Amino acid sequence: MARTPVCDLLGIEFPIFAFSHCRDVVAAVSRAGGFGVLGALAFNPEELEVELAWIDEHVDGRPYGVDIVMPNSYVGKGGGAEITREKMVELVPDEHRRFAESVLAEHDVPPLPADAAAGGDLKAAGLGIEQEGPGQVEVALKHPVKLLVNALGPPPEEVIDRAHAQGVLVAALVGAKRHAVKQVEMGVDIIVAQGTEAGGHCGEVSTMVLVPEVVDAVGPGVPVLAAGGIGGGRQIAAALALGAQGAWTGSVWLTVTEADTAEPIVENLLAATSRDTVRSRAMTGKPARLLRSAWTDAWEREDAPKTLPMPLQGIVWGEASRRWTRAGTKALSGFPVGQIVGSLDRRRPTAEVMREMVEEWIETTQRLGAVLED
Amino acid sequence: MARTPVCDLLGIEFPIFAFSHCRDVVAAVSRAGGFGVLGALAFNPEELEVELAWIDEHVDGRPYGVDIVMPNSYVGKGGGAEITREKMVELVPDEHRRFAESVLAEHDVPPLPADAAAGGDLKAAGLGIEQEGPGQVEVALKHPVKLLVNALGPPPEEVIDRAHAQGVLVAALVGAKRHAVKQVEMGVDIIVAQGTEAGGHCGEVSTMVLVPEVVDAVGPGVPVLAAGGIGGGRQIAAALALGAQGAWTGSVWLTVTEADTAEPIVENLLAATSRDTVRSRAMTGKPARLLRSAWTDAWEREDAPKTLPMPLQGIVWGEASRRWTRAGTKALSGFPVGQIVGSLDRRRPTAEVMREMVEEWIETTQRLGAVLED
Repeated sequence: MARTPVCDLLGIEFPIFAFSHCRDVVAAVSRAGGFGVLGALAFNPEELEVELAWIDEHVDGRPYGVDIVMPNSYVGKGGGAEITREKMVELVPDEHRRFAESVLAEHDVPPLPADAAAGGDLKAAGLGIEQEGPGQVEVALKHPVKLLVNALGPPPEEVIDRAHAQGVLVAALVGAKRHAVKQVEMGVDIIVAQGTEAGGHCGEVSTMVLVPEVVDAVGPGVPVLAAGGIGGGRQIAAALALGAQGAWTGSVWLTVTEADTAEPIVENLLAATSRDTVRSRAMTGKPARLLRSAWTDAWEREDAPKTLPMPLQGIVWGEASRRWTRAGTKALSGFPVGQIVGSLDRRRPTAEVMREMVEEWIETTQRLGAVLED
Repeated sequence: MARTPVCDLLGIEFPIFAFSHCRDVVAAVSRAGGFGVLGALAFNPEELEVELAWIDEHVDGRPYGVDIVMPNSYVGKGGGAEITREKMVELVPDEHRRFAESVLAEHDVPPLPADAAAGGDLKAAGLGIEQEGPGQVEVALKHPVKLLVNALGPPPEEVIDRAHAQGVLVAALVGAKRHAVKQVEMGVDIIVAQGTEAGGHCGEVSTMVLVPEVVDAVGPGVPVLAAGGIGGGRQIAAALALGAQGAWTGSVWLTVTEADTAEPIVENLLAATSRDTVRSRAMTGKPARLLRSAWTDAWEREDAPKTLPMPLQGIVWGEASRRWTRAGTKALSGFPVGQIVGSLDRRRPTAEVMREMVEEWIETTQRLGAVLED
């Protein structure tokens, strides 16, 4: 019961997809009958191997997926030889370094200790790209993943071909109808239509408007998942009403008991209302919905320099965020999160959240049916 | 069939509410089993009397409502004597007049002819307020209206009391949970929870997130209608799934055959995609979602002055919009409209739109029920 065609395609019980950077959450969702998707951007290939091996051991044979960020264009890409990470760091203007430093100073954030490992900044910014993307695909395809997801722009054709050759499906997130059509033409199997209320990189069109548009544009042969604003069973029912075959969720898993989200961030998330997010370029240079913080506020100020293109803004953010995370500075502890953050008020186990989602969804469907009988 | 409690409260067949400035649309929706709501802001009391008398003759005894704008605060209000319209016009800075004039000149928009009636600018900007609000209420309550709607902020207590004394219900639009709670405390009967994707004045939270929040906050005794992003039956089903008792629609009625929307605006609306709206202060000084136009673009430019507070920006916009409307200047012909504008592709009769909405809603509900049986 409670299945849509995409459930059969992936061998899952409920059409609830959960994006998380935390392997514990991924495994817990899949064990509960949903589909966990590991956000791999924080891991290099060796680390990803460790994470996926752990999931394989803890997922009880249930299906899961991996999400890899492969943006199509950014500073340093193209024009022959790829630019090194060190070169990219040098491209950050002094003005931006100084501004970031002044924001950190306003909150008494100390420098990193000399023994802190270097290089975490790019990964923290979600920019373990190009150098790591292909390596991540290699690693992922050695494990029994059922779905490769590309979060930013169209995935490279060779990745799609390799996945398909192994019977692995490919999904892509889109925020606009024409991107959905393009992705399907390139061979993507499942479209995640992500509304502007979603956390992280997002477009401007809301889930309510975007999902039916995308469903109609790609046609009945392509499963569409709805993303953005989904945290409970009423929203899952709404997503299916809009024509989606399933619900893609993310924010709700940041505060479950299994999540490894840093404590100051969890506290901020649980305290936030739905009006406490902002669509900002202050993290990666592309518009992303973030929990509003002293960092996002600072980049809106009149004295702030214009945010940099990808990946340079991410380098500035990554260096700064390592410092405030280490210092535990709550005012700066924003995070990519959607407007649904307003519904998060306590830590709960993943299995409990899943159970309540399914129950509320079933109740909602029955309530909708009863309206027609009145 | 297809009824929710708010249908019984208002004596309607389907929980579909249609906001329109056009009496023909209001009457056609009510005749088709929905609930038409006349946006009264463009009419002085004498004009409103004419409109409502016309509706009474053409609505076949079906119920309808009136929407009146009564903002709580604006320049010129309070501090003793009310300021006159002439005084308000004088408060517009020269810089803003000059900028508006330069935008009009860029598009070769001529001045109004000397014989053009004066004073339409405030009304065009939706600012027939305070002087006219109470008069509008007087007039409305002489007709068999079932619902008075206040579009901006909490309605004055005496209006609520007078409406209730006559058995007329009061509704209010809100874009945030705490405003909904406040309105209910003040005696408002029905809450319209309006997501950021809606046309006109709107908040930042999407319909998908806002509706369940508001429903939970006001409790089961208060009917909530969902507004923003609703143009078809899938979205009506989604609105009900989110916990709303009905759907509040607006944008879809701008292009029906009965609508008196100016031709250049209709052409722009039918050509627009869901990404062609912008949340802008360029019309009234408060954030409102508008079809993107050369006017909204101009106020985003680096050389643009900061938009003025209400009602001064509306005076600037009102004067300018009378001129470009008269000149038929398409590039400037924006309009308050929601992201659902992307789904409008041809003129259709109101009754046909209503019928398709209901059919799609019923099909959607049946489809959702079937998922649970699989």
